[in-house]
Amino acid sequence: MPLGEFELIQRFFASAGACRDDVVLGVGDDAALVVPPPGVEIALAADAIVEGVHFPAGLDAEAIGHRVLAVNLSDLAAMGAEPAWALLSLTLPRSDSAWLEGFTRGLDALARRSGIALVGGDTTSGPLAAVVSVAGLVPRGQALRRSGARPGDWIYVSGAPGEAAAGLAVLQGSLPRPAAAERLVSRFRLPEPRLALGNALRGVASACIDVSDGLAADLGKLCAASGVGARLEVASLPVSAALVEVAGADATRLCLAGGDDYELLFAVPGDRVGDLPELGVTLTRIGRVVAGAGVEIVGEVRGEGPLGGYDHFLKEGRTTTARGLGGPSQ
Amino acid sequence: MPLGEFELIQRFFASAGACRDDVVLGVGDDAALVVPPPGVEIALAADAIVEGVHFPAGLDAEAIGHRVLAVNLSDLAAMGAEPAWALLSLTLPRSDSAWLEGFTRGLDALARRSGIALVGGDTTSGPLAAVVSVAGLVPRGQALRRSGARPGDWIYVSGAPGEAAAGLAVLQGSLPRPAAAERLVSRFRLPEPRLALGNALRGVASACIDVSDGLAADLGKLCAASGVGARLEVASLPVSAALVEVAGADATRLCLAGGDDYELLFAVPGDRVGDLPELGVTLTRIGRVVAGAGVEIVGEVRGEGPLGGYDHFLKEGRTTTARGLGGPSQ
Repeated sequence: MPLGEFELIQRFFASAGACRDDVVLGVGDDAALVVPPPGVEIALAADAIVEGVHFPAGLDAEAIGHRVLAVNLSDLAAMGAEPAWALLSLTLPRSDSAWLEGFTRGLDALARRSGIALVGGDTTSGPLAAVVSVAGLVPRGQALRRSGARPGDWIYVSGAPGEAAAGLAVLQGSLPRPAAAERLVSRFRLPEPRLALGNALRGVASACIDVSDGLAADLGKLCAASGVGARLEVASLPVSAALVEVAGADATRLCLAGGDDYELLFAVPGDRVGDLPELGVTLTRIGRVVAGAGVEIVGEVRGEGPLGGYDHFLKEGRTTTARGLGGPSQ
Repeated sequence: MPLGEFELIQRFFASAGACRDDVVLGVGDDAALVVPPPGVEIALAADAIVEGVHFPAGLDAEAIGHRVLAVNLSDLAAMGAEPAWALLSLTLPRSDSAWLEGFTRGLDALARRSGIALVGGDTTSGPLAAVVSVAGLVPRGQALRRSGARPGDWIYVSGAPGEAAAGLAVLQGSLPRPAAAERLVSRFRLPEPRLALGNALRGVASACIDVSDGLAADLGKLCAASGVGARLEVASLPVSAALVEVAGADATRLCLAGGDDYELLFAVPGDRVGDLPELGVTLTRIGRVVAGAGVEIVGEVRGEGPLGGYDHFLKEGRTTTARGLGGPSQ
């Protein structure tokens, strides 16, 4: 028996707003009501994920529920903001209890772990897509931005970029699936937003962005926003052993150009490097900020294809060379 | 020449956040930063509109841009909240400058008029859909809710419900298009959120909801949230002359069951009726709150079909009779 929209909302979402005492009114009215604490700025972001664009048809519902929240929490992490409230807009071809249970399990587990309350949203019929918008809290004037990098700052990245893109390729059958591939698939299915790291980088990093479109492309955006350039050392990249085992000669290219990692990429002034937090996530120094513009990639990158990351309306990628990669113009 | 995603964002959305001085950082970073004033609650809502579901394929881009913001502003109006900040998530089959110019013109005009700043969001490729999330401000403890109606309160509605649904039917060719139909089409294309009215109803109305799914259905939701019933007088309904001219015998049914009006439906205690605002929008007393549950429709409603409004996952509508309409269970 199909569930109606009201039962859907009631059954799956109505209890999810109960985890914060600053939520005065949660799901079920025309809007939710929340009370901001004094002395904060509110960080606001929204990201959509669409079947066939951001994830392959047939990806399990739990991964989709996790992902749509994770990509948004990653934006809060990149600002150094603490997650507070979220809205979900879910478009489904049909009402499907089993699918919704999986979706909710994935979303809910990450929401509880991150301390964010789902306070509202809507469900509608249509092609499978989900949009989450998030609000996070950050002490006034302390948010991390893309625009603060200065020549001489060191460039760091967390984790092992490229693993998520390789995991997607494994799921799609274009890379093999030895035992080592499970780690990569998991990195694509359940990316972990770096919230604790982002929080700890306030006052330490001079600029920060999350890696969603690819390391080189996102470094280009950070540089453009800061009015600087960067030299990126291929030999320093944190190309993981699992990535090399599965992707072989393409590992470095995936590390530079693969999207969907949701790691943090940030600049740190030389005198603050000693203050970098130890939180159990690997931080790797991969290059340096320089005067000028664009990202210079120093070293050999094997294989074919652009390094500039993914653009939704220019599918062939941006024109790049291994040396002299132009940063996107945002 | 197709525009890339970054150019799209830059060209169409980057300037739209400039209209409020509480926006510290607008479009272009991982998140926007805004500063809430002291003493407020923040009202948060998100609604999607999907081609073929919420609007017919081929509707002009200006109307789509207006609509996706209007439906969200209407939620703020129903809470008595003042619009502050918005995020847009736009999914487009292809990059199309002319379409985007129209979309932006519609969205931007309403945003400026409403004092809301577009501070961020994303664009992606996929089936045509748009999601806006909005944040509004309301003095602490003063928001209008659905749950405050008490037996004896009078029930009012603004404007002329049913006109938008008739306008859609005109656009789709299932109703004729005499001169009087242009008013109805305009009500569907460019619904006007009742922000000033919602604001003025704080401290006057005991409960409020916006009419998006149909007058009878939304009254059912208000009653369910308040734990009361309602008697609705068919003879009192504000069925407009234009609606009668175009829809004939179906006019009353459209007034009760047609969606997309974005009028406000609210309850007012007898001793506050004298405080109802005069804002140039017609307010009509259509019934009374009673003890019990459900909406009793008193009077004849001609034509066929349910009166309970639209449910995205139960397309045939909810089971209703002209007397004893059950309120949805939300």
